[in-house]
Amino acid sequence: MSIITLTTDFGCKDHFVGALKGKIYSEFSEAKIVDISHEIDLFNVSQTSYVVGASYGSFPKGTVHIIGVDAELHQETQHIAMEWQDQYFICADNGILSMLTQKIIPQKIVSINIHDRLAINATAMDVFVTVACHISKGGSLSVIGREITELREVTELQAVVDLDLNSIKGHVIYLDHCGNVVTNISRQLFSEIGKGRKYEIGFKNYKLKTILPNYASIVHFDQNPMKYYEGNKLAIFNEAGFLEIAIYRSDPRLSGSASSLLGMTYRDLVTIRFL
Amino acid sequence: MSIITLTTDFGCKDHFVGALKGKIYSEFSEAKIVDISHEIDLFNVSQTSYVVGASYGSFPKGTVHIIGVDAELHQETQHIAMEWQDQYFICADNGILSMLTQKIIPQKIVSINIHDRLAINATAMDVFVTVACHISKGGSLSVIGREITELREVTELQAVVDLDLNSIKGHVIYLDHCGNVVTNISRQLFSEIGKGRKYEIGFKNYKLKTILPNYASIVHFDQNPMKYYEGNKLAIFNEAGFLEIAIYRSDPRLSGSASSLLGMTYRDLVTIRFL
Amino acid sequence: MSIITLTTDFGCKDHFVGALKGKIYSEFSEAKIVDISHEIDLFNVSQTSYVVGASYGSFPKGTVHIIGVDAELHQETQHIAMEWQDQYFICADNGILSMLTQKIIPQKIVSINIHDRLAINATAMDVFVTVACHISKGGSLSVIGREITELREVTELQAVVDLDLNSIKGHVIYLDHCGNVVTNISRQLFSEIGKGRKYEIGFKNYKLKTILPNYASIVHFDQNPMKYYEGNKLAIFNEAGFLEIAIYRSDPRLSGSASSLLGMTYRDLVTIRFL
Repeated sequence: MSIITLTTDFGCKDHFVGALKGKIYSEFSEAKIVDISHEIDLFNVSQTSYVVGASYGSFPKGTVHIIGVDAELHQETQHIAMEWQDQYFICADNGILSMLTQKIIPQKIVSINIHDRLAINATAMDVFVTVACHISKGGSLSVIGREITELREVTELQAVVDLDLNSIKGHVIYLDHCGNVVTNISRQLFSEIGKGRKYEIGFKNYKLKTILPNYASIVHFDQNPMKYYEGNKLAIFNEAGFLEIAIYRSDPRLSGSASSLLGMTYRDLVTIRFL
Repeated sequence: MSIITLTTDFGCKDHFVGALKGKIYSEFSEAKIVDISHEIDLFNVSQTSYVVGASYGSFPKGTVHIIGVDAELHQETQHIAMEWQDQYFICADNGILSMLTQKIIPQKIVSINIHDRLAINATAMDVFVTVACHISKGGSLSVIGREITELREVTELQAVVDLDLNSIKGHVIYLDHCGNVVTNISRQLFSEIGKGRKYEIGFKNYKLKTILPNYASIVHFDQNPMKYYEGNKLAIFNEAGFLEIAIYRSDPRLSGSASSLLGMTYRDLVTIRFL
Repeated sequence: MSIITLTTDFGCKDHFVGALKGKIYSEFSEAKIVDISHEIDLFNVSQTSYVVGASYGSFPKGTVHIIGVDAELHQETQHIAMEWQDQYFICADNGILSMLTQKIIPQKIVSINIHDRLAINATAMDVFVTVACHISKGGSLSVIGREITELREVTELQAVVDLDLNSIKGHVIYLDHCGNVVTNISRQLFSEIGKGRKYEIGFKNYKLKTILPNYASIVHFDQNPMKYYEGNKLAIFNEAGFLEIAIYRSDPRLSGSASSLLGMTYRDLVTIRFL
């Protein structure tokens, strides 16, 4: 038995998430369900991809991830189940999984073909629940789908390396609960291109010359008390491994956030120039 | 052992929901708890009834539903537990359960009478937890209450059929997370009265002539790409079986919703005229 | 095996809470996790203390509480684990636990010292998860920390008794989901100082002469229907045992709340004068 996670844009006000869990328990009473997020912006596939990518690594092998964003079936899409990094992902083929997997090749992808075995008014979630319970109980992908080799590619924003390998251009892909600004520049890409060189991060009219190992490193306790550094901007690689611009100990509801104070939002440019 | 669900207006900021779960586990460590919603508008019994009605069908037989909305005991109300559709509902007798059950007669209703067995400062939730754990462990309703035969009726908005059986007048009863507008016109009533006739749905100054089987059916892929249809209004019977007016793939935070774009809110009139 | 609760300022939009649960299940697949709140204001230690204090009593002995607010390690703080009231609390030593415990002496406090046994990029939450799973499995505090005797004191607002013992000055410490205003005047302090005397509660320009046993007690059913009393202000000792000012059956989104209607917010003064 493995964990089943849920990532959706359903919100928590309506009955949808509760009903989804009811369906899972109805089919598999031993299921262990974990909510990742139900507050994804409606239909936002790149945000979904970021959230799933940032969380799956915290789960044990064999975990099954149900992704309920832009999942309604229509004739230009298909429902898919994917084995990747020893975990399972159930989703519409809408770009979420191609953005997620990037360079790491999936172990297996199937186009789910059980729709005609379900009730005529079955929803996308009914399909995903049946597939998730099947996998969670140890069932194989072949039973619920036909193997395919390619995911639908989407041309979303990707971090780009300059031809002379002296700079990386990235974009803001996520604004978190604290108003921190997350870019699509990964620690890995930074290391590969930077090779230990000095660098300068540019965004709007601002520049930062250091990526800190963690937020608190901005404080020099021997020079000033912690309070002194509150409200300062900083850059770190966040838990998910992406470059993040933050304001030290700032509450977006009171004093503002990196997003509001620096005027940064989705798709804004962030550049790293190596010196 | 059966599932215990929670539907409340407690919100998720405070400690109330967590404490409620702590009390359940303290009394019954094996309990399996599912949140339906904690974001019901304060004291809103008709909203609660809709949310419970839309979700209970996804749960297995024997599920116990704790309904923590307008639940404080006072001398003009009572706490009740009801067996209905092979599930259990624990609630104040404030109209939520009478709106829920409508034409389907409950198997059993009891007026809970265990209050004097609990601590003197026991809250409504303490009472409901004790009753829910009792039932979830397989206990009978007779042990925790005195049988009654009637629920308190409330005269809330109901869909009305015209005398000549040529039209149905309904009202908006729920606005969901996406800003979709849900009415109290059920698929069943529509079928009974319509008997396959053509129809016209009217609301505000708008008219719709088709109830789609699902959202994506608005797209004619042979004529235009999907993008072309975004922002169009449509009607469907939603998962809960009620007529819903929606805007195709619209995000209320970005482009607006059925509610904001069509100017529709609670209690607004929606009419179906059969031709 | 004991319950693990989570109280954080992470919000529910991001992946953080889901990832935290994934880490717990990865380390201890049998864990039983309960969310208390993830909507604490960022870095707000007194709010956290109130929420933890209001909920822990609903949990069974041995419950382990992970407190993820202001938890990043830096050189002026430490991570601690505390046994208190037969439960366990894992937190940074930032004042949350000293405000929580007040006059009741902890059974044991340790300064967590396992950081060098974890991965070099381990976060505060990684540390807390390891400690929580260790305790939940029945492990002892001595294995994961060095005993200390004192918590860091914070000079936050405390209710103050007048020298002549004829009045108590308290402050607003929490605004709940309903907009009710919670003060730091406890039922216990009120009883100790009041000794059954008559009293007058003062705040802003308002006075109240009665603390009700519950909200509904404001209604005199023999005089007027319930509706008549809606919108009236009242005082009660809430579930957590603190004096609360509320507006009877008021929805903050529609008609306003104690906070908005009486113009009261954090740190505002509330006085009880004994006659």
